Amino acid sequence: MTTAHAPLAITMGDACGIGPEIVAQLFRGTQGHGCVVLGDVAVLRRAAGFTGGRLAVAVLDRAADWVQVPPNCIPVLPVSGLPADLIDAPIGRVDARAGAAAARCIEHAVELARAGQVSAIVTAPIHKEALAAAGVGYPGHTEMLQALATPGRTPAPVRMMLANEQLRTVLVTIHLSLRDAIEAVTFDAVLQTLRIAHAAAARWGQPRPRIAVAGLNPHAGEGGLFGDEEIRIIGPALRAACAEGIDAHGPYAPDTVFMRARHAPGHPGESSTSSWP
Amino acid sequence: MTTAHAPLAITMGDACGIGPEIVAQLFRGTQGHGCVVLGDVAVLRRAAGFTGGRLAVAVLDRAADWVQVPPNCIPVLPVSGLPADLIDAPIGRVDARAGAAAARCIEHAVELARAGQVSAIVTAPIHKEALAAAGVGYPGHTEMLQALATPGRTPAPVRMMLANEQLRTVLVTIHLSLRDAIEAVTFDAVLQTLRIAHAAAARWGQPRPRIAVAGLNPHAGEGGLFGDEEIRIIGPALRAACAEGIDAHGPYAPDTVFMRARHAPGHPGESSTSSWP
Repeated sequence: MTTAHAPLAITMGDACGIGPEIVAQLFRGTQGHGCVVLGDVAVLRRAAGFTGGRLAVAVLDRAADWVQVPPNCIPVLPVSGLPADLIDAPIGRVDARAGAAAARCIEHAVELARAGQVSAIVTAPIHKEALAAAGVGYPGHTEMLQALATPGRTPAPVRMMLANEQLRTVLVTIHLSLRDAIEAVTFDAVLQTLRIAHAAAARWGQPRPRIAVAGLNPHAGEGGLFGDEEIRIIGPALRAACAEGIDAHGPYAPDTVFMRARHAPGHPGESSTSSWP
Repeated sequence: MTTAHAPLAITMGDACGIGPEIVAQLFRGTQGHGCVVLGDVAVLRRAAGFTGGRLAVAVLDRAADWVQVPPNCIPVLPVSGLPADLIDAPIGRVDARAGAAAARCIEHAVELARAGQVSAIVTAPIHKEALAAAGVGYPGHTEMLQALATPGRTPAPVRMMLANEQLRTVLVTIHLSLRDAIEAVTFDAVLQTLRIAHAAAARWGQPRPRIAVAGLNPHAGEGGLFGDEEIRIIGPALRAACAEGIDAHGPYAPDTVFMRARHAPGHPGESSTSSWP
């Protein structure tokens, strides 16, 4: 159902935070071409004002209407079910109304993406305390998108990837205390992370990615002197992944592996022998 | 007893590692002026050969003799009590002989420093597994220097500082598994780290340093959602330090505080309002 002209959906994020302003700023000039903003018209109008200078807001009926919006204008697709007094939530504070609105925008973005009306979702920052204050049962975007992707069914395993032009990092755990994160580093979790990273790389055009695995402990445990999760858990999971044909290496000292993998001008990363798409 | 001409002592580090080569390289040209190397003559001669080109080794009787050593020459003060067959320990391997020798060089450096024959100590890399293989009861330089500084007495509390021109970072814990490091973040340990950092800053010429304290958990726990060490431990210790007149702030999200503190050309750090000495 996706068409060539389906825009990117940008969720406005927490109305009391920096999200609306960041989003508004994007639409100065032509950088926001091909995007629609899911949010509250009054909040985005206020954000446009904060960013200074002339910046109009166009209220759309459908995502596809983005093509009619001129430059220097924020194309807003109003989201139904937002709190009526959202604009009264004080800026810079944790507010349950802002948490509820942020979650509702993400839900609507997923509805549009599943219907093929938008091609992908870009999310502005949310505040996890505001989500919690609104009774939203997810600690962050990742868990929420995971649940919404398969409504009514058991969520499929997902992982967060942090990516820029130099480095792509897939995380075993997110949104946990450090104490809980250690407990969550299990054989299954590490192996599944490697499987997901490997499969995802093919979709972004790199069918055989070379994956470095970071250790958990300082110096990757230095042979078991400072922690043994590398020996008991991470190493065995890594070898199991290799046995499945995944080109995984490590575990490496977490204090240096990112610099080794980083692929930058004048600094060819060790993460891949082929070119980085 | 220290004289203006007391040199820096450089320990050669693990004879099977990169230490001797790094040290040798320093003495090409004039960069090593004012330093003496504590180590094994044969190992340093071999390292000089590895680095290519002509680089002589001068064997000194006393640290003060460094002034007679010409450029492009490594001034080596032989350390007594090194294993006689140290040169036979294979390069690139963990070897108890190299561990014992590395420890002995550090001990001797401290003896010279305490006698005022050298003005400070610079250490080349050691291998903690080699130390352990040699039966040396310290996990690293910091603990060893701490014990040697007050022989026969209870060691005074110390902290490791990582420093470059942009950032000085004082660590609450070192050389522990991540699991043990969490347990070691106590009220007393955090407060003592702040006291030591504050007092040390005066000695490097900054009598009232502005100190940012990093949280332990992602996002510094985000108000207790992802761990409560910031609320239970780090925050109270920080406030106790403030009550003593220490200019401490935080706890801040550990994923951003280093970038905020970093003091670089074009990026004035938030760590200090005064100039960075």
